[in-house]
Amino acid sequence: MDGIGVNFLSELVGTALLIILGGGVVAAVSLTKSKGFGAGFLMVTIGWGFAVFAGVLVSYKSGGQLNPAVSLAQMLLGNISFGTMLIYWVAQMLGAFIGAVIVWLAYKQHFDEEPDAAAKLGVFSTGPAIRSYGWNLVTEVIGTFVLVFVILGITNGKAPAELGAVPVAFLVIAIGVSLGGPTGYAINPARDLGPRIAHAILPIKGKGSSDWSYAWVPVVGPLIGAALAAGASTFLLPVVS
Amino acid sequence: MDGIGVNFLSELVGTALLIILGGGVVAAVSLTKSKGFGAGFLMVTIGWGFAVFAGVLVSYKSGGQLNPAVSLAQMLLGNISFGTMLIYWVAQMLGAFIGAVIVWLAYKQHFDEEPDAAAKLGVFSTGPAIRSYGWNLVTEVIGTFVLVFVILGITNGKAPAELGAVPVAFLVIAIGVSLGGPTGYAINPARDLGPRIAHAILPIKGKGSSDWSYAWVPVVGPLIGAALAAGASTFLLPVVS
Amino acid sequence: MDGIGVNFLSELVGTALLIILGGGVVAAVSLTKSKGFGAGFLMVTIGWGFAVFAGVLVSYKSGGQLNPAVSLAQMLLGNISFGTMLIYWVAQMLGAFIGAVIVWLAYKQHFDEEPDAAAKLGVFSTGPAIRSYGWNLVTEVIGTFVLVFVILGITNGKAPAELGAVPVAFLVIAIGVSLGGPTGYAINPARDLGPRIAHAILPIKGKGSSDWSYAWVPVVGPLIGAALAAGASTFLLPVVS
Amino acid sequence: MDGIGVNFLSELVGTALLIILGGGVVAAVSLTKSKGFGAGFLMVTIGWGFAVFAGVLVSYKSGGQLNPAVSLAQMLLGNISFGTMLIYWVAQMLGAFIGAVIVWLAYKQHFDEEPDAAAKLGVFSTGPAIRSYGWNLVTEVIGTFVLVFVILGITNGKAPAELGAVPVAFLVIAIGVSLGGPTGYAINPARDLGPRIAHAILPIKGKGSSDWSYAWVPVVGPLIGAALAAGASTFLLPVVS
Repeated sequence: MDGIGVNFLSELVGTALLIILGGGVVAAVSLTKSKGFGAGFLMVTIGWGFAVFAGVLVSYKSGGQLNPAVSLAQMLLGNISFGTMLIYWVAQMLGAFIGAVIVWLAYKQHFDEEPDAAAKLGVFSTGPAIRSYGWNLVTEVIGTFVLVFVILGITNGKAPAELGAVPVAFLVIAIGVSLGGPTGYAINPARDLGPRIAHAILPIKGKGSSDWSYAWVPVVGPLIGAALAAGASTFLLPVVS
Repeated sequence: MDGIGVNFLSELVGTALLIILGGGVVAAVSLTKSKGFGAGFLMVTIGWGFAVFAGVLVSYKSGGQLNPAVSLAQMLLGNISFGTMLIYWVAQMLGAFIGAVIVWLAYKQHFDEEPDAAAKLGVFSTGPAIRSYGWNLVTEVIGTFVLVFVILGITNGKAPAELGAVPVAFLVIAIGVSLGGPTGYAINPARDLGPRIAHAILPIKGKGSSDWSYAWVPVVGPLIGAALAAGASTFLLPVVS
Repeated sequence: MDGIGVNFLSELVGTALLIILGGGVVAAVSLTKSKGFGAGFLMVTIGWGFAVFAGVLVSYKSGGQLNPAVSLAQMLLGNISFGTMLIYWVAQMLGAFIGAVIVWLAYKQHFDEEPDAAAKLGVFSTGPAIRSYGWNLVTEVIGTFVLVFVILGITNGKAPAELGAVPVAFLVIAIGVSLGGPTGYAINPARDLGPRIAHAILPIKGKGSSDWSYAWVPVVGPLIGAALAAGASTFLLPVVS
Repeated sequence: MDGIGVNFLSELVGTALLIILGGGVVAAVSLTKSKGFGAGFLMVTIGWGFAVFAGVLVSYKSGGQLNPAVSLAQMLLGNISFGTMLIYWVAQMLGAFIGAVIVWLAYKQHFDEEPDAAAKLGVFSTGPAIRSYGWNLVTEVIGTFVLVFVILGITNGKAPAELGAVPVAFLVIAIGVSLGGPTGYAINPARDLGPRIAHAILPIKGKGSSDWSYAWVPVVGPLIGAALAAGASTFLLPVVS
């Protein structure tokens, strides 16, 4: 298989796994009768952190980006071409969509018995605690800036290669517990939009709105945050890390 | 000792340790008067993750499989023979049985004073949150697919060997918190069937049914999931990781 | 850029990141309507531990000290000059100030809607559970002694370099869960004073006192603890680790 | 300093640190008004795990045993002499005593305001959930067997040295969450007896009994468990790990 196919498949598989495990932990905590019901925000954040960990473990060939915002930063820094970035974006979106379908299948009965439509959407996509598109955007920009800036620092700096995907997992947990409060930390356009499309398409029993009016925030915010991080990294990271 | 004996003993010891620590955490959380009573699902999943970690640490000689589903995948991929797989299976079942007996001894008084028979069975074996053999099977297939696919990715890909059993521990935590909600994530036939036999045999005070009608699900589901993962890995993993 | 500028910028960036993620986790847990509201002390301590982890990852050039108490110890041990220490101090204070402003922006709406002024201050600075300047000081001295003594042990001893910032992250979690009960473990003058100044300056809606009467404790205590640890390390660490 | 002095000081310092952080987390969770009050059993077990981690980091010279049961096993296996073991034991007991005093100082006001005498003793020493010396002993034997057997497996087997103290930390967390329910997992005679002596001696306001009738269980149980593990390791570990 050529490089394009490898990158496409690698990102697709990794992102699908990310969403299976990440969407799964939200389902575990928020759907009625789940054994993890009410287990709390810490479990959600640990779940997403280790979900990224697992996704990266099976997408080394493409660099384990699993996030259009990360790919944008890599493109802006000249590490991948614009065309490759688009291929990554499609693969990540498709992988996220597939992952969301699998979460739905794994929790099929719990979706069927869940009375709260908002809880169902929450398994797929993020939503703000206090709706305010401007401030919600700010929060997503900040969260993604931290994610991308530190990821670039890991590869640029002296972080030991022996740790593999561990630093990214810990970083994602750190961002989740700290900056996840206001918007549920999408910090990844594919993580939010792919599953939202799945929510709109899938025949989920008793589902409500897919909340499309908010959908642009977790897409645009992360892209802005990543672009700012890429810019900041060019003059800051060679100096600091 | 010859290779067969080494593999047998290594898997037996590792699986016994896995169940001592994994069954133990369920006992700690669910049996009345335990100091960990009510500590929640996150603690259960961390407990099982580090239980796998500890089990792998003392079964390097046999590859630390500790799971008939993993051994099935290794056999299908030609890494171990059919006969060796059967030896692994017997050792894993026996180890799991022994581990369950030891958990019972460690929590003997708490079993004696526990009024809820379902809580007692829960220390030994998994059960569904919403009983539906078909969907419960789907959940176990998905969970084990993720487990086996990523494990194969760890060994196939560029995951750093310095981390040893750490990636598997984090992976098992990730699967537990995300896909454990509907069925309690057996994802391992020995983990469920061995202790269920122990539950049936042991003179546990006030025990109820061993729920044999469900017992096939956490055996068949993981085997299907592992076979699918082995198949998918042959064409996907060389490409992606 | 010369060495002074590198150190300054590296400490500033690292400490800003530390406070974004560390202050952020307190906001996530304590501000009304946050998705992490009430997630508990364990999440706070994990958040601060991984916040240090992330901060160190992007400040390798300056040694990732991020803490005036650590810099004092390094100066006392002759590893950096008095002048360099002062540069570190200013950078750390400024970074902590900037980080606190960013936390406020990320949680802007939650600050606006939060009725409890004490909860707002708690996002910025520490405060004692039981006010008693003497004993609060003792607690901060002990906590920082442990922090600095073990950090010096990590670099002096046989801790494997492959782990990078992981040991410090685990150590900060350990100190948080154990010695954080009485004072909220500043164990870092910049972590407390920089954000306290931000609290005093920022136009936070409905904010109360910045509690300046307590502000000296989390500055003086950590400096004393670090000096004691530096002293103890000179005769103990070559012997024990 | 000669080898005896090095070993003595190294074990003393490491064990003191273990108890500062381990006793500290119990204080944080169980003493009234502590910021960690009610944070739960998971936090306690993570605290003890990382306490061991920190203790090992500053006692490499002596092998970071920090536990008379571990030292007994090393003596039985011929790795240290009987005389060295006795030196280790004294150092560990003294270190644990000192650590307990420091925890008391760090939480001085919380001890003063705590009405529950049992909660105070719990910061120092373990106690059974259901008192029954025989079964409590069984639980401590099992817990310590697992601890010592896996520790021997780590050094005997193929566990990567790059991980340093990490595997022991994860193992201690695993044992805590799983086997800690019935007795609070002393699994270390010094961890229990040293602080119990401190409890008896210190002028703790409103303290109750030091529960000497139970004190032999967390001393004898761990020693038996360690001896059994040492014996089992001689024929099992060369085979399995």
